[in-house]
Amino acid sequence: MTGKMQQGVLRAAIDRRPVASDIAIIETPRPDCPEDGVLVKLAAISLDPYVGTRLRGKHMGEPAPVPMRDAIPAHGVGQIAQSRADGLKEGDWVHTTEAGWRDYAALPASAVRTIDMTGLDPADHLGPLGMPGLTAWAAMAKRAEVQPGDSVLIDAAAGAVGGTAGQIARALGASRITGIAGGPEKCAAVTGTYRFDACIDYRTEGWRDALAAALPDGLNVHLENVSMDLLTLALTHMRPYGRAVLCGLADQYHADAPPPGIPAGLIIGKRASLMGLVVYDFYDRWNEFTEFAAPLVRSGDLKIAKDSVTGWADAPALFERMLAGKHIGKAMVRL
Amino acid sequence: MTGKMQQGVLRAAIDRRPVASDIAIIETPRPDCPEDGVLVKLAAISLDPYVGTRLRGKHMGEPAPVPMRDAIPAHGVGQIAQSRADGLKEGDWVHTTEAGWRDYAALPASAVRTIDMTGLDPADHLGPLGMPGLTAWAAMAKRAEVQPGDSVLIDAAAGAVGGTAGQIARALGASRITGIAGGPEKCAAVTGTYRFDACIDYRTEGWRDALAAALPDGLNVHLENVSMDLLTLALTHMRPYGRAVLCGLADQYHADAPPPGIPAGLIIGKRASLMGLVVYDFYDRWNEFTEFAAPLVRSGDLKIAKDSVTGWADAPALFERMLAGKHIGKAMVRL
Repeated sequence: MTGKMQQGVLRAAIDRRPVASDIAIIETPRPDCPEDGVLVKLAAISLDPYVGTRLRGKHMGEPAPVPMRDAIPAHGVGQIAQSRADGLKEGDWVHTTEAGWRDYAALPASAVRTIDMTGLDPADHLGPLGMPGLTAWAAMAKRAEVQPGDSVLIDAAAGAVGGTAGQIARALGASRITGIAGGPEKCAAVTGTYRFDACIDYRTEGWRDALAAALPDGLNVHLENVSMDLLTLALTHMRPYGRAVLCGLADQYHADAPPPGIPAGLIIGKRASLMGLVVYDFYDRWNEFTEFAAPLVRSGDLKIAKDSVTGWADAPALFERMLAGKHIGKAMVRL
Repeated sequence: MTGKMQQGVLRAAIDRRPVASDIAIIETPRPDCPEDGVLVKLAAISLDPYVGTRLRGKHMGEPAPVPMRDAIPAHGVGQIAQSRADGLKEGDWVHTTEAGWRDYAALPASAVRTIDMTGLDPADHLGPLGMPGLTAWAAMAKRAEVQPGDSVLIDAAAGAVGGTAGQIARALGASRITGIAGGPEKCAAVTGTYRFDACIDYRTEGWRDALAAALPDGLNVHLENVSMDLLTLALTHMRPYGRAVLCGLADQYHADAPPPGIPAGLIIGKRASLMGLVVYDFYDRWNEFTEFAAPLVRSGDLKIAKDSVTGWADAPALFERMLAGKHIGKAMVRL
């Protein structure tokens, strides 16, 4: 298999939040299938906030992609176009964390995970069953260990991680799910599509009072991936021995100064447990997670809004919108 | 039973760290035994850091004692001198959190806990089996859930809480116990009397390097009750998924400004669990704790240096020394 393909790359090195014009879509040779590996024809790739810092070389110590050469990193779902690996055959659907912005990816067998597409869309495997879903499951089921009766507060609730987390918490028996999101459209998705009990729009005046009113009995589980300010506010509403999971601080990814610290007095006074989460640690449990979550997706009990474009031309603009938090749900490019 | 007794009181209201001269020892009438209660002749009372803030009305919302009237708060151990309560009889040894600086305390039956003095000293029930011990046990056994093989770092290791915590961690199977303390005398107690594997003197130059050298494989459990700076340092040496228990910030009890916050990036990056602890929540588990710890005290596997004076005259000076962190082990007044 030879020929050309399209690929998204950085035009030049950057040291700020990337924008659409930083990305060029170029034509490159389609790669060959590697020995003991596979060539995957991608059907959809995921746009995720961490890539914004990754492009600056500021994510988990990983180097920035080389401008005009390396595909912009992305997870993806596709079908095997050619296989030289045992147990993987042409036509198999796979998910890979090493897809990148390109039509075809040449990968070692170890980099792909076979997925079941029955009753599912490629996009499901990037959203509720993809890295955002895995993050949400790790946070709710494995770190916070949500129990029946828990009252759960989710920040960035319209996002793929937050939206999935609330629905997973519900599946684990939580009795009340409250979200925080920015703007009426996002809040409508949170209470409508994701069926949270309430959503507080932090862009409205008096929203802190509204949050207090939405939590008459406080909360005992919190998921934070945006802001120290919200984490601190959540702690003030926390019942004794509540658990908060911290899996990122999106509002700091492109900030110059370090964030303010977590107030020690609240941790002690609330007898809180605050837990850090890095989703990479759960990559080897993806099948366990999928067994739990795929039935929920098929039954309609776990769904995430999809903010997608088709083809590379509109991908940079969606990437910019996603990094600015202006998307709803899972941002992705269908190919 | 009538007559006089001595009692320690504040001379006047204060709004700073108390010193010896703030305390007056006055003569007051010996109280009568209350209906359904007991009159306890105290044998020893405990001097604890939290009383420093309690005297200023800044501890857990409790009011400051009224000057020249209310006994300074203290836990104590004594014998029942007179009983009008079912199940409690003259001569029984009891522990009470409501002893106060006085020779006799008139208490409701619910305020005393009968204790077994076999092979033990009243001071044991104020130190390793008292509130410091209960705090240490709650931190190590119930919050951090120390497991065999854990590497444990204890701040304020020469203190009653820290010293007990290290020995309890050892009893729970921890493989390495490292302490931090101020000064050679304290460090000698930590590695000698308390048998920690190492103690770092934070008053020596290069102590941060010495700490790193003492933790070649990092740590996975940390107990902090002094300083945000030490908590942050401990987090930098923490293995993934380590647990830190925060039960106080002694260096902040009399500070004007709030402490710096806990760095969120370290919590995430280390996948740490940070847990708040308030020992009050464990008062109803004191018997469970004593069952665990009393055999260790009797066998010599749990011992705490005792820094005591006998009689009220020297008590204010020891109280001042204790609040300044200049004592070693458990500070107490024997009567």
